[in-house]
Amino acid sequence: MKIHNKNYRTIWPCANGKALNIIDQTRLPFAFEIIEISNLPAMIKAIKTMQVRGAPLIGVAAAYGLALSLLNENTEVALYQAAKDLIASRPTAVNLAWAMQRMLPKLTKLPLNERVSAAWQEAMQMAEEDVLQNQQIAMYGLDLIKRAYKNQPLNILTHCNAGWLATVDHGTALAPIYAAHDAGLSIHVWVDETRPRNQGSSLTAWELAQHGVPHTVICDNAGGHLMQIGQVDMVIVGADRVTKNGDVCNKIGTYLKALAAFDNDIPFYVAVPSPTIDLQLNDSSQIQIEQRSNDEVAYMQGLSEDGNLQSIRIMPVESMAINPAFDITPARLVTGIITEHGVCAPNQLMKVA
Amino acid sequence: MKIHNKNYRTIWPCANGKALNIIDQTRLPFAFEIIEISNLPAMIKAIKTMQVRGAPLIGVAAAYGLALSLLNENTEVALYQAAKDLIASRPTAVNLAWAMQRMLPKLTKLPLNERVSAAWQEAMQMAEEDVLQNQQIAMYGLDLIKRAYKNQPLNILTHCNAGWLATVDHGTALAPIYAAHDAGLSIHVWVDETRPRNQGSSLTAWELAQHGVPHTVICDNAGGHLMQIGQVDMVIVGADRVTKNGDVCNKIGTYLKALAAFDNDIPFYVAVPSPTIDLQLNDSSQIQIEQRSNDEVAYMQGLSEDGNLQSIRIMPVESMAINPAFDITPARLVTGIITEHGVCAPNQLMKVA
Repeated sequence: MKIHNKNYRTIWPCANGKALNIIDQTRLPFAFEIIEISNLPAMIKAIKTMQVRGAPLIGVAAAYGLALSLLNENTEVALYQAAKDLIASRPTAVNLAWAMQRMLPKLTKLPLNERVSAAWQEAMQMAEEDVLQNQQIAMYGLDLIKRAYKNQPLNILTHCNAGWLATVDHGTALAPIYAAHDAGLSIHVWVDETRPRNQGSSLTAWELAQHGVPHTVICDNAGGHLMQIGQVDMVIVGADRVTKNGDVCNKIGTYLKALAAFDNDIPFYVAVPSPTIDLQLNDSSQIQIEQRSNDEVAYMQGLSEDGNLQSIRIMPVESMAINPAFDITPARLVTGIITEHGVCAPNQLMKVA
Repeated sequence: MKIHNKNYRTIWPCANGKALNIIDQTRLPFAFEIIEISNLPAMIKAIKTMQVRGAPLIGVAAAYGLALSLLNENTEVALYQAAKDLIASRPTAVNLAWAMQRMLPKLTKLPLNERVSAAWQEAMQMAEEDVLQNQQIAMYGLDLIKRAYKNQPLNILTHCNAGWLATVDHGTALAPIYAAHDAGLSIHVWVDETRPRNQGSSLTAWELAQHGVPHTVICDNAGGHLMQIGQVDMVIVGADRVTKNGDVCNKIGTYLKALAAFDNDIPFYVAVPSPTIDLQLNDSSQIQIEQRSNDEVAYMQGLSEDGNLQSIRIMPVESMAINPAFDITPARLVTGIITEHGVCAPNQLMKVA
């Protein structure tokens, strides 16, 4: 996708083949900065601090992270430890484990001196597949949008960021929206701010603005009201993990929007590439919900009047906070799941994943 | 209630009888400042900018505002214009209109020279009644809490601020919580941050901290998840207007919490003094939802590292926002309404209001 009219992906190898470039997503929307990641600890830190985030992107980032680890130490023990550390860097998205489960068997059957280049190649392959999957999601999602379209602006609500910044390129939930906009349909996006880290107002809004897609930022509290007054035609979100029965684990607050969509007869779609579907879990009860730092609730980052990126405290020093990062939307509230293989009911995932 | 161990109300007449003192609620929790309001425009500004806010408090503030207007000009025309301007200062809460409907008939039947003192007296009377009503709400709400209590911390979730800062004293939704805490019950409050103005994290958390009530601030997105995992035993909120059929108009986002409470079989109570009940409206369809400045979404106020109150921009300059301030919780999602007359089902309001 384009930033200031230049094509970018969210992650790409450096020319020397020994490091990665990533866009530092903690600085957006106020600063566009590319940083170099040249070793495993730096990649783990980038995932933990959400310099890279989004289930599909962190899967690919972890694959590259494993390749970086081999540059430093290529013993079997180090390889497995690196995979373990990468999986632990964020506990909820299945994509980290998926990436390691794909990399490890391919690498361990090779002689040590072939592993580095094989790891790079596999990670690059995974990045390409992500791009292709998202293009397919765009196509299937565009079909849904076209069917709902009535020659007037179609209002789509999304939560968090499942745009191209959450993937290698194109996005999941936003991929159909970009496709519809590019096809000349009039689309307007309600962008949930998505507290506490504001991925909606800082990443989704920024993405959409860069691409020229009409959008409006709303507080997370406002979506239900907009649905009640007929201002939302469709909801599309991404996910960090979808279980076999169709339960959707996604950014905290998704469940509330699904309840409101259900209460107002508004279709609620989840767009995910197949690596986000976890057929090992029958339902969501075993998913570990990541608890992130309370400071994400207590402090807010933004642009001060003098143009500096600044953090301010927004609650009393005496008060505590907690910060669960995800919630579960039960399959019963989900209209359909959009994957690279098509759109299916949440209870039909076995056939497509 | 107590601030730094000294008793305060949210509004009280100055010693000279020609002005009001209010706590500037836009400066909390980081600065506790009392400001003097000495004329009608200042009172209207205080209501509009939410230096005073909360349905019960702005009703009383409007009554005092009318008294202040008479100090300046006591013609019939000016009196009605003042009432009109006060009602228009915030369109959603019924308490402004209620206050004017109570003041005007009493004043207009008096000779001009008796109106000033009558207006002051009536406003003071309304303030006293608010305090008494909230004490009654505390008592009836305490009964509900006692019945739900099982000798372990009872987790109550609340949205926005319906504490003593939203009233003259004691609060509505928080009044039963203070009563339960003071009665020695172990109560823990989940405090919804309540974007965009953060009345939860800045006012409710501050109030509860001052009184020593255990509480935890959460993002508005987190409440549904906490209900799903059994961490919420009861929801109590206030309201800006309750219609005859039991529909509840309250701070934006209340509807989402009511949906989640309903989905998880958690009782959802609304605590209001009778002036907040609007028997003139059969249902919520005619309520005008206040649209507030988009800057409340785009900017956030808090404490900078160097200890100054600062405002930062938290979304891209290119993006728009909208800011509906209230939503409607349909009566079907409400377990009970707590008033000074007792607790009733939402469809039984006619008997108590």
